[in-house]
Amino acid sequence: MNFDRIDMEALEKELIALRREFHTCPEAGWTEFRTTARIIEELEKLGLPVQYGPEIHVREKMYGLPDDAALEACYARALEETNRKDLVEKMRGGYTGCLAMIEGELPGPTIGIRVDIDCNEVDESSSDLHKPAAEGFASLHKGLMHACGHDAHTAIGIGTAKILSAYRDKLHGKVLLVFQPGEEGLRGAASLTAAGHFSKCDYFLGAHVGILKNQEVGTIAVSAHGFLSSTKLDAVFHGVPAHAATPDEGKNALAAAATAALNLLAIPRHQQGPSRINVGTLHAGSGRNVIPEWASMSLETRGKNGEINAFMEESARRVLEASAAMYGCTCDIRFMGSAGSIDCDPALAHKVKRILADVDGVKKILEDVDFNGGEDVTTMMRDVQEHGGKATEMVIGMPLTAPHHNGFFDVSEEVIGLGARVFASIALEIDEA
Amino acid sequence: MNFDRIDMEALEKELIALRREFHTCPEAGWTEFRTTARIIEELEKLGLPVQYGPEIHVREKMYGLPDDAALEACYARALEETNRKDLVEKMRGGYTGCLAMIEGELPGPTIGIRVDIDCNEVDESSSDLHKPAAEGFASLHKGLMHACGHDAHTAIGIGTAKILSAYRDKLHGKVLLVFQPGEEGLRGAASLTAAGHFSKCDYFLGAHVGILKNQEVGTIAVSAHGFLSSTKLDAVFHGVPAHAATPDEGKNALAAAATAALNLLAIPRHQQGPSRINVGTLHAGSGRNVIPEWASMSLETRGKNGEINAFMEESARRVLEASAAMYGCTCDIRFMGSAGSIDCDPALAHKVKRILADVDGVKKILEDVDFNGGEDVTTMMRDVQEHGGKATEMVIGMPLTAPHHNGFFDVSEEVIGLGARVFASIALEIDEA
Amino acid sequence: MNFDRIDMEALEKELIALRREFHTCPEAGWTEFRTTARIIEELEKLGLPVQYGPEIHVREKMYGLPDDAALEACYARALEETNRKDLVEKMRGGYTGCLAMIEGELPGPTIGIRVDIDCNEVDESSSDLHKPAAEGFASLHKGLMHACGHDAHTAIGIGTAKILSAYRDKLHGKVLLVFQPGEEGLRGAASLTAAGHFSKCDYFLGAHVGILKNQEVGTIAVSAHGFLSSTKLDAVFHGVPAHAATPDEGKNALAAAATAALNLLAIPRHQQGPSRINVGTLHAGSGRNVIPEWASMSLETRGKNGEINAFMEESARRVLEASAAMYGCTCDIRFMGSAGSIDCDPALAHKVKRILADVDGVKKILEDVDFNGGEDVTTMMRDVQEHGGKATEMVIGMPLTAPHHNGFFDVSEEVIGLGARVFASIALEIDEA
Amino acid sequence: MNFDRIDMEALEKELIALRREFHTCPEAGWTEFRTTARIIEELEKLGLPVQYGPEIHVREKMYGLPDDAALEACYARALEETNRKDLVEKMRGGYTGCLAMIEGELPGPTIGIRVDIDCNEVDESSSDLHKPAAEGFASLHKGLMHACGHDAHTAIGIGTAKILSAYRDKLHGKVLLVFQPGEEGLRGAASLTAAGHFSKCDYFLGAHVGILKNQEVGTIAVSAHGFLSSTKLDAVFHGVPAHAATPDEGKNALAAAATAALNLLAIPRHQQGPSRINVGTLHAGSGRNVIPEWASMSLETRGKNGEINAFMEESARRVLEASAAMYGCTCDIRFMGSAGSIDCDPALAHKVKRILADVDGVKKILEDVDFNGGEDVTTMMRDVQEHGGKATEMVIGMPLTAPHHNGFFDVSEEVIGLGARVFASIALEIDEA
Repeated sequence: MNFDRIDMEALEKELIALRREFHTCPEAGWTEFRTTARIIEELEKLGLPVQYGPEIHVREKMYGLPDDAALEACYARALEETNRKDLVEKMRGGYTGCLAMIEGELPGPTIGIRVDIDCNEVDESSSDLHKPAAEGFASLHKGLMHACGHDAHTAIGIGTAKILSAYRDKLHGKVLLVFQPGEEGLRGAASLTAAGHFSKCDYFLGAHVGILKNQEVGTIAVSAHGFLSSTKLDAVFHGVPAHAATPDEGKNALAAAATAALNLLAIPRHQQGPSRINVGTLHAGSGRNVIPEWASMSLETRGKNGEINAFMEESARRVLEASAAMYGCTCDIRFMGSAGSIDCDPALAHKVKRILADVDGVKKILEDVDFNGGEDVTTMMRDVQEHGGKATEMVIGMPLTAPHHNGFFDVSEEVIGLGARVFASIALEIDEA
Repeated sequence: MNFDRIDMEALEKELIALRREFHTCPEAGWTEFRTTARIIEELEKLGLPVQYGPEIHVREKMYGLPDDAALEACYARALEETNRKDLVEKMRGGYTGCLAMIEGELPGPTIGIRVDIDCNEVDESSSDLHKPAAEGFASLHKGLMHACGHDAHTAIGIGTAKILSAYRDKLHGKVLLVFQPGEEGLRGAASLTAAGHFSKCDYFLGAHVGILKNQEVGTIAVSAHGFLSSTKLDAVFHGVPAHAATPDEGKNALAAAATAALNLLAIPRHQQGPSRINVGTLHAGSGRNVIPEWASMSLETRGKNGEINAFMEESARRVLEASAAMYGCTCDIRFMGSAGSIDCDPALAHKVKRILADVDGVKKILEDVDFNGGEDVTTMMRDVQEHGGKATEMVIGMPLTAPHHNGFFDVSEEVIGLGARVFASIALEIDEA
Repeated sequence: MNFDRIDMEALEKELIALRREFHTCPEAGWTEFRTTARIIEELEKLGLPVQYGPEIHVREKMYGLPDDAALEACYARALEETNRKDLVEKMRGGYTGCLAMIEGELPGPTIGIRVDIDCNEVDESSSDLHKPAAEGFASLHKGLMHACGHDAHTAIGIGTAKILSAYRDKLHGKVLLVFQPGEEGLRGAASLTAAGHFSKCDYFLGAHVGILKNQEVGTIAVSAHGFLSSTKLDAVFHGVPAHAATPDEGKNALAAAATAALNLLAIPRHQQGPSRINVGTLHAGSGRNVIPEWASMSLETRGKNGEINAFMEESARRVLEASAAMYGCTCDIRFMGSAGSIDCDPALAHKVKRILADVDGVKKILEDVDFNGGEDVTTMMRDVQEHGGKATEMVIGMPLTAPHHNGFFDVSEEVIGLGARVFASIALEIDEA
Repeated sequence: MNFDRIDMEALEKELIALRREFHTCPEAGWTEFRTTARIIEELEKLGLPVQYGPEIHVREKMYGLPDDAALEACYARALEETNRKDLVEKMRGGYTGCLAMIEGELPGPTIGIRVDIDCNEVDESSSDLHKPAAEGFASLHKGLMHACGHDAHTAIGIGTAKILSAYRDKLHGKVLLVFQPGEEGLRGAASLTAAGHFSKCDYFLGAHVGILKNQEVGTIAVSAHGFLSSTKLDAVFHGVPAHAATPDEGKNALAAAATAALNLLAIPRHQQGPSRINVGTLHAGSGRNVIPEWASMSLETRGKNGEINAFMEESARRVLEASAAMYGCTCDIRFMGSAGSIDCDPALAHKVKRILADVDGVKKILEDVDFNGGEDVTTMMRDVQEHGGKATEMVIGMPLTAPHHNGFFDVSEEVIGLGARVFASIALEIDEA
């Protein structure tokens, strides 16, 4: 499709500038206060109705929320980094992300388009070889970095809004733009889904930049498989402290946790396919000469499908509880997030394929690629499918300078304009495709 | 005391020959068929009434019985090594050991004297440096050896009977001679005790050769402390087998047992004093490419006192059960034997000390030595004390060629005659001491 | 092909009888003394030249040989079960298996056909529901059973010889019949391969009964993938014994082995595909109150390809050595067998497919099935391929009464005649296919 | 002795006020900036020459120093809490503690008197049942508390200086007052000892309040045994990070540390007597979905004597290194502090006993009590003994409201004046005793 009503060159520059702004101020899951405010600002410029704050969430489904102190610290930081305190204040407590509805002037389906907006807990490289560092837009937030391309996703979402706003007279139906918080850790989708935003979507589309190795910009996959099922758990062991000279008086939570860690890694492999288990962090004990009374760990299980992941999760829970019991401790296991596997709808993918053939910049279309990871867009997609809609997750290829989640990760900024054109084209043409 | 009615030199030679005979045919706990038969033969020669077989035992207290196949194999071996099948047959099933009563002609107390008769599961050295090997009386039973001196104890018990039988006119009261099976593993005392044999004893005496380092023959301790409390357990883990290619279908009993083993060793030390834990054996699995469906281990806990040992045993049971649960297995824990700590009666020890001053061959008397090990004579002693009697365990010193339970262990045979004189003297003089 | 020179019905009955005979006298890897002698008897009846004994093996490649005592015990058993001591004697020491060459009268290629002859270490079911038990041909060797169909394979091999011997005038080239010992544990192929028997084969064919679930007799797969790479290792830990009361004097081999077992299971999963690790057996310690001075374990690693298996094996060796070092022990790691992954030759499979279309009893032909296990026929196949030949492994489907290696496993005996016809047809027609 | 030159009642009140001041501003080892400055202020008032800062330490023996950031943070806090920045500045970098010399006017021996001044890393109770909280002098430093009585020790040291300063005309020889930093963790004594301050001491005295259970104020032990040998180690594991989906690419430092933790706890008990091992803290990993590339732990070993502790430390180092090797990681083991066992000099204890008989407030004198813990005064004592002097560590009894190192621990403030009188009396009379 040819978007001749818009100066696409100028728009692309604007979106790249936005992406770089997001890149300098990365915010982790449930703390995207400034990011969300900035998105809303742009959407408001377009006159779009935007929903945000507690009204779009279901508190008890906001998995993996940081603790209050961390939320408040990020909130305070955001207040210093924004002119729109009015917006930020409404999100206090973690109610980040927003939804915008673009109403077409023609009758037609409801199309959900989702982008994710949170960053990673990764230190960004300061090397001159790393473009954001060399060109001065590296993260200003120590320990945080957009190392998964969600800064580009956010800019793509805004770009999509800008294009579609200019073509509302040609738009059949309406487009629900979803700026999702907390994708990392598979934490954010459940809350928005539980709030019922997606149940009326006839179509639902997501896209991720990168993922595939060694792809030119212009390569797009119209659907993917290999979304691993995954569950994120935190476990906290409670024991009884004692002086190291009287260990029989204690209940050693560190020993329980160490036992758990080893035996979690020893959960058997599954005959049906790939599984994974990781104990990512472990913290225990208060002093060298005290029998440790507490230990906490964060872990995750993965499986090629839901059955395998369920086996892993069930085994993990058994290991955690038995390890605690072994040392006379207790163990609180907290569910922190999850995503399931999903099948993209081939009919939708086929439609998308036909549309993309005419999108400027699309050079190569792949039919079905291996995502080989978890994505909580699957939570939304499943909800859409269960309500009778169709969903697919695309991959927007680009050369990878470094793996995702690495301090040297960077995006080829041409994908931003391309992504916006892709989403906009699909929205405008899907009812005919 | 001077035993001039007896040719002590000839008796000592006879007892040494008996000890060597026992040394060549060692029998482990509950399989002392031939040994018991041989003891009875000697006691019968003296005209003493002897009790043996099922009548002296309480089956459900016969802890740590070998399995039926092992009992039968040893029984068969004994039948080949004895002329007294009549005696052996009555013991079939593990009913070994015997009791003999020597009635004095004068009124007086009941005095229990206990010796133990079983051997160790140790390979005897075949070195020329090891006297039993060099002189041709080493064990004929592969894997079995009298490496704790119970062969000498048995001979001392017979010697005591021979001396006392010659002095019944001077004996006040009566002497109950106890030839206990299954001391190793602390298995045999409970059955005899439960049968009520010791409840009427006014005095109760035991003795062990060796124990103390670097002692001349002639050194005797009249009491001891440091009897470790100990519990012997067997644990059998049951899981579910599976092919190694489908490990998710199995419940891995070997993994459960390995987890248990490590965490048993990690049971905390106790502030009150020494504790010990050992997993002595572990057997698991049926084939390289099968997820192991079973595992069995033998273990023991020890503690300086009953409280410490109870802490160890309780912790061990918790570890075993949690390890099984961790792998979806079950665990049968079987009680195999135990012994407790005990306080020897100082008043009895004092009497013994006075008597020993006049016993031929006694050169040095120690008042209270550190036994530093478990002994199930404590089970009998406690029973006596609870019924109002007094009890002590003596130590008959000798130079040690090697540690107890070592393939080079040997006894200084002078202790045999000396031990018999000690017991006989105490029995004859205690009412006056 | 139509074998009208032969009374196929009678032959099938004869082969079934042979299979049942093999079933009653199962022999494990490197102890197939009686089995091999019986095969040779049948081959000799056909006038075929047979090679066997030390001349066909390379001693240092006879992996996973039982120890001498076990070899001798099985040898003695075989001598009691055979009339052909002359044959058995030549195999003493484990030199089992044999090779027979069938020379065709027409010029043509050399075709290797391999069957395996060893049994499993599995207790056979005595249930009436289990046909060998109900009909009286269950294993007479306790703890041993043909639970993987090698009894049928052996009969198929003999049947193939019988058919081909009747058609030598029509046979292009020659057929090398391989009766391989020690397939279980992946132990036998290396020795025969190293001896150079297969380097001149133009074609090489194997076949396994069962494998696929829920197949009718008559289903044949002409090639397979999913041969897991696998390595079999034994590890023996040596420590220092000590009395359980003085554990600081010991070096605890059981603790080292338990640590190894857990950490072996915790070797990370591999991103490239399936891996497996199993510690199948663990034996340690000599007595409850002795710090264990030794421990031995049998383990295996598996991987979807050689790289994954190499990662597993290397990790396993590191775990074993570090576990030993941790407890001041040493660890001997012994290579016991291995098999690699393989790609069947599609061209050969295609030829076989065409031939099978006309074989009596073949109802359904599958092109390429998932073997999902290790098979050391791959060692031979790789050797053939490396020398320029083509190889494939077929699967002869049948309903499964129970999984392979299970005490209820049984074969549908129709596969025996079918298998013989399949091999014979391929040998006779491959030069034209 | 009767200190009639001094208003003891006023002095006691002053010392109690000082103790409470120290209690509100607790400082942990090597950060006693404000505490030391306050001590120096008091000593300067007496006109005593005081040594402090880098000149009294040997940098490379300042074990267990906090990292620079922590040192600086505590330094900054101290600057805010003191009027004597001149003093504090000289200690920057951790050079805390001080020495004061009191010269007698009469010839005589050199007497070392040592008190320790650091606090614990313990949260103080805010309960009304806890006197410091109820009366408003609880710690103002979150996470820090004088929970071992070193606040009282410090006040005792100052009180001793005050009394002795008034009696210099009666003092034979001279008194070296040692205000030692970093006793907790057994970190501070080595540096001062290495600097040679104690080599000329003829006598050396320490004292600890509490320790004994259920003692009235007025009970003093003139010597103690049972000083456990102890070693403090930190271990840092370095691995290789990887995404949790590709665990084979990582080297899992958390797994190495968990293995180490379990196997450290499993180090065998020692036949010679009590041993201890504790892994007090463990921190590992950077994110849930990252194979952990680092782990750090703090641990300590203890033994009844140096030989046992050496066995524990050597075993611990072996476990740490093997655990790292097992996972392809490396392990840095850092020595953080130690203390040895010591024998108090009976002759000195005897002299002290005679002197104490006349000290006001001493009601009961014990000869030799079980310290049952580590104390790095032993490092100083050993140095004195090795140079020909005599040393003893006293215990000043008091009722215990809670165990040492507990948030409810409190001292009976009468022990402060008592302790000062005890030290002063000994210093004034030892040359005659």
